[in-house]
Amino acid sequence: MSDENEYPLLEKIQSPRDVKNVREEDLPQLAKECREWLVNAVAKTGGHLAASLGVTEITIALHHVFESPRDKILWDVGHQGYIHKMLTGRRDQFPTLRQWKGMSGFLRRDESEHDHFGAGHGGTSVAAALGMNEAKHQQRENHKVVAVIGDGSFTSGMAFEAMNHAGHLGRDLIVILNDNEWGISPNVGALGQFLNRRVSSKSFVRLKDDIKKWVARNAGPEMVRRIGQIEEAVKTAFLPGSALFEAFGFDYMGPINGHDVHEVVRALRAAKAASKPILIHCYTEKGHGWEVAEADPLAYHGPGKYDPKTGEIFKAPAGGAPSFTDVFAQAAIELTSQDPKVVAITAAMPTGTGLHKFQKAHPDKFYDVGMCEQHGVTFAAGLAAEGIRPIVAIYSTFLQRGFDQIIHDVCIQKIPVCFAMDRAGLVGADGATHMGNYDIAYLRCIPNMVVMAPKDENELRHMLKTAVYCGSPAALRYPRGNGFGVPIDPEMKELPLGKGEILTQGGDVAIVAYGTSVQDALAAEKKLREKGVACTVVNARFVKPLDRDLLCGVIGNVGKVVTVEDGCLMGGFGAAVLEMLQEAGLHRGIEMRRLGIPDEIVEHGDQKIQKKYCGMDADAIVQTVLEMVGEKPATEASRSAV
Amino acid sequence: MSDENEYPLLEKIQSPRDVKNVREEDLPQLAKECREWLVNAVAKTGGHLAASLGVTEITIALHHVFESPRDKILWDVGHQGYIHKMLTGRRDQFPTLRQWKGMSGFLRRDESEHDHFGAGHGGTSVAAALGMNEAKHQQRENHKVVAVIGDGSFTSGMAFEAMNHAGHLGRDLIVILNDNEWGISPNVGALGQFLNRRVSSKSFVRLKDDIKKWVARNAGPEMVRRIGQIEEAVKTAFLPGSALFEAFGFDYMGPINGHDVHEVVRALRAAKAASKPILIHCYTEKGHGWEVAEADPLAYHGPGKYDPKTGEIFKAPAGGAPSFTDVFAQAAIELTSQDPKVVAITAAMPTGTGLHKFQKAHPDKFYDVGMCEQHGVTFAAGLAAEGIRPIVAIYSTFLQRGFDQIIHDVCIQKIPVCFAMDRAGLVGADGATHMGNYDIAYLRCIPNMVVMAPKDENELRHMLKTAVYCGSPAALRYPRGNGFGVPIDPEMKELPLGKGEILTQGGDVAIVAYGTSVQDALAAEKKLREKGVACTVVNARFVKPLDRDLLCGVIGNVGKVVTVEDGCLMGGFGAAVLEMLQEAGLHRGIEMRRLGIPDEIVEHGDQKIQKKYCGMDADAIVQTVLEMVGEKPATEASRSAV
Repeated sequence: MSDENEYPLLEKIQSPRDVKNVREEDLPQLAKECREWLVNAVAKTGGHLAASLGVTEITIALHHVFESPRDKILWDVGHQGYIHKMLTGRRDQFPTLRQWKGMSGFLRRDESEHDHFGAGHGGTSVAAALGMNEAKHQQRENHKVVAVIGDGSFTSGMAFEAMNHAGHLGRDLIVILNDNEWGISPNVGALGQFLNRRVSSKSFVRLKDDIKKWVARNAGPEMVRRIGQIEEAVKTAFLPGSALFEAFGFDYMGPINGHDVHEVVRALRAAKAASKPILIHCYTEKGHGWEVAEADPLAYHGPGKYDPKTGEIFKAPAGGAPSFTDVFAQAAIELTSQDPKVVAITAAMPTGTGLHKFQKAHPDKFYDVGMCEQHGVTFAAGLAAEGIRPIVAIYSTFLQRGFDQIIHDVCIQKIPVCFAMDRAGLVGADGATHMGNYDIAYLRCIPNMVVMAPKDENELRHMLKTAVYCGSPAALRYPRGNGFGVPIDPEMKELPLGKGEILTQGGDVAIVAYGTSVQDALAAEKKLREKGVACTVVNARFVKPLDRDLLCGVIGNVGKVVTVEDGCLMGGFGAAVLEMLQEAGLHRGIEMRRLGIPDEIVEHGDQKIQKKYCGMDADAIVQTVLEMVGEKPATEASRSAV
Repeated sequence: MSDENEYPLLEKIQSPRDVKNVREEDLPQLAKECREWLVNAVAKTGGHLAASLGVTEITIALHHVFESPRDKILWDVGHQGYIHKMLTGRRDQFPTLRQWKGMSGFLRRDESEHDHFGAGHGGTSVAAALGMNEAKHQQRENHKVVAVIGDGSFTSGMAFEAMNHAGHLGRDLIVILNDNEWGISPNVGALGQFLNRRVSSKSFVRLKDDIKKWVARNAGPEMVRRIGQIEEAVKTAFLPGSALFEAFGFDYMGPINGHDVHEVVRALRAAKAASKPILIHCYTEKGHGWEVAEADPLAYHGPGKYDPKTGEIFKAPAGGAPSFTDVFAQAAIELTSQDPKVVAITAAMPTGTGLHKFQKAHPDKFYDVGMCEQHGVTFAAGLAAEGIRPIVAIYSTFLQRGFDQIIHDVCIQKIPVCFAMDRAGLVGADGATHMGNYDIAYLRCIPNMVVMAPKDENELRHMLKTAVYCGSPAALRYPRGNGFGVPIDPEMKELPLGKGEILTQGGDVAIVAYGTSVQDALAAEKKLREKGVACTVVNARFVKPLDRDLLCGVIGNVGKVVTVEDGCLMGGFGAAVLEMLQEAGLHRGIEMRRLGIPDEIVEHGDQKIQKKYCGMDADAIVQTVLEMVGEKPATEASRSAV
C-alpha cells in the first residue's frame, strides 16, 4: 500500500464539510484513499478493520449528502466507525486507537460532536435514532437523523422493536441496512436468508414491462384495472425486502450496491427529501477493497497488528498458556462427547466464545441463535425443561440483555441452565461498553442461582462440569485473555457446591479472592511473606452459595480480611462476604477492605493498566494489607501451604 | 348466567383426554359452557378474564387435537390460561385463584403436568417452545410443541428473535398467533396495523380464480408460465401476513376465525401433520362471548370481583387514598404542563402505569412503544440526548428487560433519563413472575445512576421532579396499591440529591427505611415507644447516592441499626448501608439487622401476607428491635419529633 503523500483528497479533509466539497466524480478516489490510509493505520495498532472497510462508500456518501453535526448519523455497534472518525478530524489520533487515554475503538459522544450516540452492543442505533428524530419533531427542528445498521445487528430483537415503532410513528427517519451477510461471523436466521435472495432488480423491471405490454395489448380495461392491483405484489415477489419493510411501515429503497458511491449518494438524496420512514438496503462486502480482508473477513474483523503490504497478522509468540476461551471450548466439547444431552448455544459469537470449535466437533449439538440474548436464554430454558443440558456461552456484558429471561424463565422455575460468561471483569481495549463488571451483582440477587468463578483454566474445566450438572441455574465467569499455564487435569470432576478452598495459611490477614483475582492474591501473599506478613489466601470459588463455614471460620479467626474481585464493588463479591459476616453477627470483630472495580465507568486500555487504576492488582493487595497490619520483619512470617 | 347443572359437557371433563372424546359437533356447546362457568367463577375472586374468554375455542381445539402432556402447549403470558386450567382438572381450585397458597393466575410447571412452561411476562412462549421442540429432536421423540402468543406479546423483540431462529432451524414448531388487536390495552406498532388489514380470504380466492380463467383463455403458454410466477405474489398482496411470516421461514395458515372451533380444529390438524414451522393466524375478540367484556375488554382484562349477571365490577369503597399510580400520572401531567420538554413513555401499559391520563392531557408528549422495554429505554436515551426530558414508566419487573440498555445506552453516556418504576417490591396476587424485588440491586451497581424511593405519595411527586431534573440517569420506585392519604403539596419541588431525612429521634435503635417501608418503620416506632424503646427513624430517600453524612452520623451515634426495604436483601438497600459503614470504618461499632425480601421466590397472595412472610412489616421491625435492645419500661422512652 502507499505512503502519506498518496492521499491528495484525504489530506484536505479536516471535517465533514470538506467531504461535501469533494466533487462527486472524485468520491471513488476518496474512497480508495480512505481504505489505503485505514489499512496502514490499523496495521500499527490492531483494531476493527473489516467492518469499516465495508462501509467506506456509505460513510463518504453520508457526509457528502448530509451535514453533521446538524444532521445526526448513528452507527450501530460503532466498530463500523473508523472511516467516520477519519473524516471527522481524528486521523491524528489513530496511533492511540483503543489504548489507555487514547481514541476509542467505538464512537463516543464525548470524543467528537459528530459522534451522536455511542454504541458497542448491536441493535441500538434505530431506537436511539428514533428518539433523536422524535426530539427533533418535539422541538420543531428540521435536520435529518440516519441510523446505519448491519444485518447482524438487525437480527436483535430491539432493532425489530424500534423498526416497528418507527413505522407506527411514521416520521422521516432514515435507516441504512448495511447488508453484508455477516455479523462478526456469518449471520444466522431465516430473515437473513430471505433478504439475501439477491434477485436482480433488472430482471424484475424487465418482467414487469413485458407483462404490462402484453396485458395492454390483450386485456380489456376491467382486467387491466384488476391486474393493476397486483403490480405491487409482483414487486414484492421479486424484491422480498420491500414487502417485509413495508410491513414495518417503511418505504423501501434498494437493494443497491453499497460500493457504488454514486448509487449510494443518489439514494441518500432521495431519502433526504422524504417525509416518512425510509429503509435503504445496501449490499456490501465486509473487508471490501482489500483482497486479503475480502478473502477472510472473520480474520480481519478485529485483527491485532499486521503487515499492511501482505496482510500477515502478527501472532503472539507461541508457547503461551491457552486462553480461557479455548479451555472453555475444549471442556464443552469433552462434556458433549461424554454426554449427548449437553448442547452449546452462542448468540452470534461462535469465534469469540470459542464455540466454532465445538460446532466442528458436535455440529448437531451447536446452536447459534443470532444476536438474540433474550431468545437465547429462554430457548435454553425450553431445552433444559425437557432434559437437555444447555451451556449458554455469552459474554458477561451481553448477558445483560438476557437479565429478565434469567430471572423469569430460568430461575423462578429453577431450570438448570448453565451460563458460561466469557470476558468477565475488565476487558481491556474494547472499553466501557464491553466491561463485564456487573454480572456478580446482577446474578447473585436472583433466587435459585448458583454463581461461581474459577481461579485458573484448570478449575474452569471442573466448574463447567459442576455448573452443567448441579441441578440449578448456574453461572460461571472467566476473563478475557490467557490462562496461567497451570497443568490441566485430564478428567473434569464436579466440585462440591458452595465450597471454597484455603490455599495458604497465615495469621495476619485473610485474603479472600474470587475467580482469577486468586492469582493476584497469591502473588501478593508471596510478596507479603517476604515482608514478614503471613496471609491466609482463600479461593472462594462460589459467590452464591458462599462457603459460610469456611469463610466465617477463617475470617473470624484471623480478624482481618481483604476481599478481591474483578467486578464492581457495589453489590459484588466483597459485599456478599460482608453481608454474610453481618448476618452471622461477626462483622463487629472484623477489620475489612474490599478491592474491586469502583463505582465509575472504566475506560478502554490495557487490562493491566485498568486493574492498577482500579486498585485491585497484586500491588494494591500488598499495599492494602500493609496498611492493615503495618510492616513486620521477615522472620515473623508463618506460612504453611495447605 | 347459569348454575352448576347447566354444564353437562364440562362436568365430564377431568383431563384433556376427556376433551378429545367430546364429539366435534359438540365443541361449540363445550365452549359455551366453559365461558359461562368461567364468568361465574372469576366473579367471586377477580382475575384475568377477557384474555381467557377470547381463547376459549382455541383452547378447546388444542386439547381436542393434541395430547397434553405428551404434546406441549405453551401459553404466552399465561393469563390466557384459565380455560386451559379448567380443562386440565383444576376447576375446583378456582375459589383460591391468585390467593396465598392458592392457584396461580398464570401457568406453572409445578401446578400441573399440563403447564409445560410458566410465564407472566409477554413474548417468551416461542423461544421456550422452540427450545422444547429442539429437545424433542435431540432426543428423537415425536410429539408436537405449540406456542399460543397474542399479537401484543408478538411486538416484543424476543418473540421476533425466536421466530427468526425457528425459521432458521426449519423444524415442526407450531405457533398460534392469537390476534385480537389488543395487548392489555390496544396495540401499537406498524406491524399490528399491517396484520390487521383484514382482507377477506374469500375475495382473494375469487380474484385469483377470475384471473386464472381469463389468462387461460387469452394467453399463450409462455405468458401463462410467467404469470404463474406471480401467483404467490398475488397471495401476498391480499394476505399480508403470508409474506411476512414466510420471510421468517414459516408456512402461514390463515387468517382464520378463532371463534369458529371447527375452523380452528381443521387448521390444527393440518398443522399437526406438517414438518416445518407453521404459523396459524387466528382472529379473536378479547372478552368474546360475554357482551359486557366484549364491549369493554380493558375493564375486563383483570377485573376485581363482579356481578356475573350484570357484569357490574364491585368498586373498592370510595374515599380511600389515591393509588401511587394515579399520583404519579398526575405529577407527570403537571410536569409536562410546566415544561413542554417533558414526555412520557410506556411499554404497552398505558392503563397500568396511569399514563392513559397523561395521554389524554398531552397526546403529543405521550409514547407507547409496545411491549418493547429494550427499545423503550434506548428510545428515551435518544430523546434525552437531544434535550427532551423523558419519563420512562415501566414496572420494576418489566424494566429487567431494559437492563442492558440502561447500562449501555443511558448510564455509560450519563444521559438523563428518568425511570418511574411502578409495582416495586412485593406485588401481591400476580406473584413470582411480576415481583419488583430486584431493582434496587440491579440498578445501584450501575455507575452514574441515581436511585431513590419516596416514603409516600406526596414525596413521590417531589421525587419525580427531582429525577427529571437531576441531570443524571435516575430511577424512582413505588409500590402497587394505594398511598397513605397524606396531604399533597400543590407545588412539586426538587429534593436535594442524596439527602435523607430524620423523622423521629431516639437513642436506642436507628431504623433506616427505604421507600414506603418508612411507614412500617414509623408504625413500629410508635409501638416501640409505647414499650419504652426510643427509635430514630430515618427516611433514606436515596439508595444511590446514600446520605453518608446523615446515616453514618445517626447510626454511629445510636450504635444499633435496623434497615427496612421492600426489595431483595442480597445487594439491596440494607446491603448498601452496610457497605457504606464498612467503607467508613464504622461497621465494627454497629449492631445491625437488615429486613427485606429473603433470597427465595415469594409466591402470589395478599401483599400484607407476603410482607409478613418476609418478616418486613411493622410487627417484624418491632420484634427485631426488641431482640436488639430488650424490652424497656415505658417511662424511659425519649422521643422527639424533628
